[in-house]
Amino acid sequence: MEYKYAKRMSSVTASEIRELLKLTEQPEVISFAGGLPAPELFPIEEIKTVNNYVLDHNGEHALQYATTEGYQPLREWIAKRMNTRLGTSFCDENILITHGSQQALDLSGKVFLDEGDVVLCESPTYLAALSAFKAYSCKFAEIPTDDSGMIMSELEKALEKYPTAKLIYVIPDFQNPTGRTWSLERRQQLAEISAKYNVAVLEDNPYGELRYEGDFLPSVKSLDKAGNVLCTGTFSKIFCPGYRIGWIAGEKEVIRKYVLVKQGVDLQCNTIAQMVISAYLEKYDMDAHIDKIREVYRKRRDTAIKAIRSAFPSDITFTKPEGGLFLWIELNEKIDTTRLLEKCLEHNVAFVPGTSFFPNTKKCNTLRINFSNMPEDKISEGIMRIGRALNEFTE
Amino acid sequence: MEYKYAKRMSSVTASEIRELLKLTEQPEVISFAGGLPAPELFPIEEIKTVNNYVLDHNGEHALQYATTEGYQPLREWIAKRMNTRLGTSFCDENILITHGSQQALDLSGKVFLDEGDVVLCESPTYLAALSAFKAYSCKFAEIPTDDSGMIMSELEKALEKYPTAKLIYVIPDFQNPTGRTWSLERRQQLAEISAKYNVAVLEDNPYGELRYEGDFLPSVKSLDKAGNVLCTGTFSKIFCPGYRIGWIAGEKEVIRKYVLVKQGVDLQCNTIAQMVISAYLEKYDMDAHIDKIREVYRKRRDTAIKAIRSAFPSDITFTKPEGGLFLWIELNEKIDTTRLLEKCLEHNVAFVPGTSFFPNTKKCNTLRINFSNMPEDKISEGIMRIGRALNEFTE
Repeated sequence: MEYKYAKRMSSVTASEIRELLKLTEQPEVISFAGGLPAPELFPIEEIKTVNNYVLDHNGEHALQYATTEGYQPLREWIAKRMNTRLGTSFCDENILITHGSQQALDLSGKVFLDEGDVVLCESPTYLAALSAFKAYSCKFAEIPTDDSGMIMSELEKALEKYPTAKLIYVIPDFQNPTGRTWSLERRQQLAEISAKYNVAVLEDNPYGELRYEGDFLPSVKSLDKAGNVLCTGTFSKIFCPGYRIGWIAGEKEVIRKYVLVKQGVDLQCNTIAQMVISAYLEKYDMDAHIDKIREVYRKRRDTAIKAIRSAFPSDITFTKPEGGLFLWIELNEKIDTTRLLEKCLEHNVAFVPGTSFFPNTKKCNTLRINFSNMPEDKISEGIMRIGRALNEFTE
Repeated sequence: MEYKYAKRMSSVTASEIRELLKLTEQPEVISFAGGLPAPELFPIEEIKTVNNYVLDHNGEHALQYATTEGYQPLREWIAKRMNTRLGTSFCDENILITHGSQQALDLSGKVFLDEGDVVLCESPTYLAALSAFKAYSCKFAEIPTDDSGMIMSELEKALEKYPTAKLIYVIPDFQNPTGRTWSLERRQQLAEISAKYNVAVLEDNPYGELRYEGDFLPSVKSLDKAGNVLCTGTFSKIFCPGYRIGWIAGEKEVIRKYVLVKQGVDLQCNTIAQMVISAYLEKYDMDAHIDKIREVYRKRRDTAIKAIRSAFPSDITFTKPEGGLFLWIELNEKIDTTRLLEKCLEHNVAFVPGTSFFPNTKKCNTLRINFSNMPEDKISEGIMRIGRALNEFTE
């Protein structure tokens, strides 16, 4: 048959880069392309223990349907954790458990976006947030950024230009793809500007717990007096991604809307996954576990930075993130990193070309490096290979 | 703040009946309202064994990110199972794993529906399918049904009236809410009509494995020469719902579209849940397990039917389903079952009033009874209570 797809499907297309990156699944390829946590740090034995505990003590509940809102003790833990770590004032009713924080992005599209609505985002920003929102046929306005985050005068200009803009999407902590962290001042300004223009903010925070140096900063939400800010979080980077447990947090009124939307979308999250994580949090020391992750990733970041300094030409700039999984390299502006990737694949090394992270403009001379997913020797070797490929490419 | 929600949110509202049914969570209430499988039949010990096996042998993979399409051995099992049971000709590439079959409905909305598009459905039909599609701002055309399924002359009339209709949504096996099963002839006619009018069919099949008498019938998909039919399935009713593992199956071309959409929606399903189910299927006898469920539910259905015959007035009609979880009662047309439910709650018994299952028309004198979720003595007692409430109500 000739399928009569929805109009939105014309913008939901397979990415050329994703096809290229399929080649990176070969074992001989050192890939900096993913955003994967280090699997050797997953607490497998502890998960086994709590899995058995949950099935022994509460198996019928753990395997049955449950509420859309999510497992209450887990929602309560999340609220408390956010209050301690991010300065919010949440209780369980402010939290909806989502199928990874990616689902929180999709639900946000459904709750807020009509066809043609404008989403304001950092330039560059998280690739899969663009996919999530695009499916609601929105437009993007890219706001320029610098080392302190989104540039607020540019945000105000955009809000003047698009007075009906629906959503400001930001990743203030260890941003994807740049690794940058917003200054406190920018956070305060964003909270004020969102109130002034009465526009919702989605503060995406998958990496916030993974700080390797410097002090934790208050979330934009904690500075939000008007109730405009929603925040996401996830267990993917501090526990494991396989369980697909994330959350969205915000004022009760708007979270209730998300709950209604999620009911139609998939009824609820995995019951046993929520109970297993909750039991883990009760029986084990999550802080100690996160410390372990931070120590390993800090070294990997340092190794990556050192390797870049030695293997890359001097006309590049790159970020030195205080946390998270990624760093961002800007090459000589003549270099198209999508073409460089092809050359790199000949050298069995991969990264994500920066163009994917810009919804409208394309900065072709940028690239993203993930440093969480492989041991230090491979990081050094991989960066060296990119350096060699770059030499050949520019010759 | 004043949230600027998407237009669709005006139709995404809390249902009055859902609020009423919250009262049914008290332990003293016998509730026929849910669609829950019997938790005492969940294979808890076996799940523990395979959970430990997966974590011991493949823990790092089980807890890591994985592909959007789903775990390959599980997709292969599903394809083979459908081919044997439903007469299809699928391989793994025809299958996308979804977060429960509910997600397959939401994804179908995203793939096919633009604002104002028409979805043709049985009258009555599955409540949460209406919610899933409604979020894409579609309209519904209800097609009258009888004991053999959707009335095909009425379907053709509707297709003439709505030539741009996008989707025909049907539940041919043990339909929710009526429990009815479509005849072979109607299935053949639907396959032909969908080809003639070039309109996609979504064949929702959560209960098909749970047949208590009579022969299994070929799926509409198996009769579909034009490639118009997509089918859903789920492990919720034959294994457990807590894992949220379902699927959508169809021609490779259209399944690839679903995969792209799912990438933006939530990246992928729970990795370990898929591997645990797959290990269960390898190590244990799923057919024997399903037989056990069928035997228990068959008795519960018989008990419900017997109790209805003895406790209800003679001016009612009700379905005697050959499988599934539900039966459907039509009372004297003067009786509004939403008001009857209020009376029933005084008697500590509950059901779902039929109105919820009609998108446009409302047949107020109907109700749905779930018979899978409680022991036989409670079924008898609960139906008796409804009978008493009905007596008081009509007096």
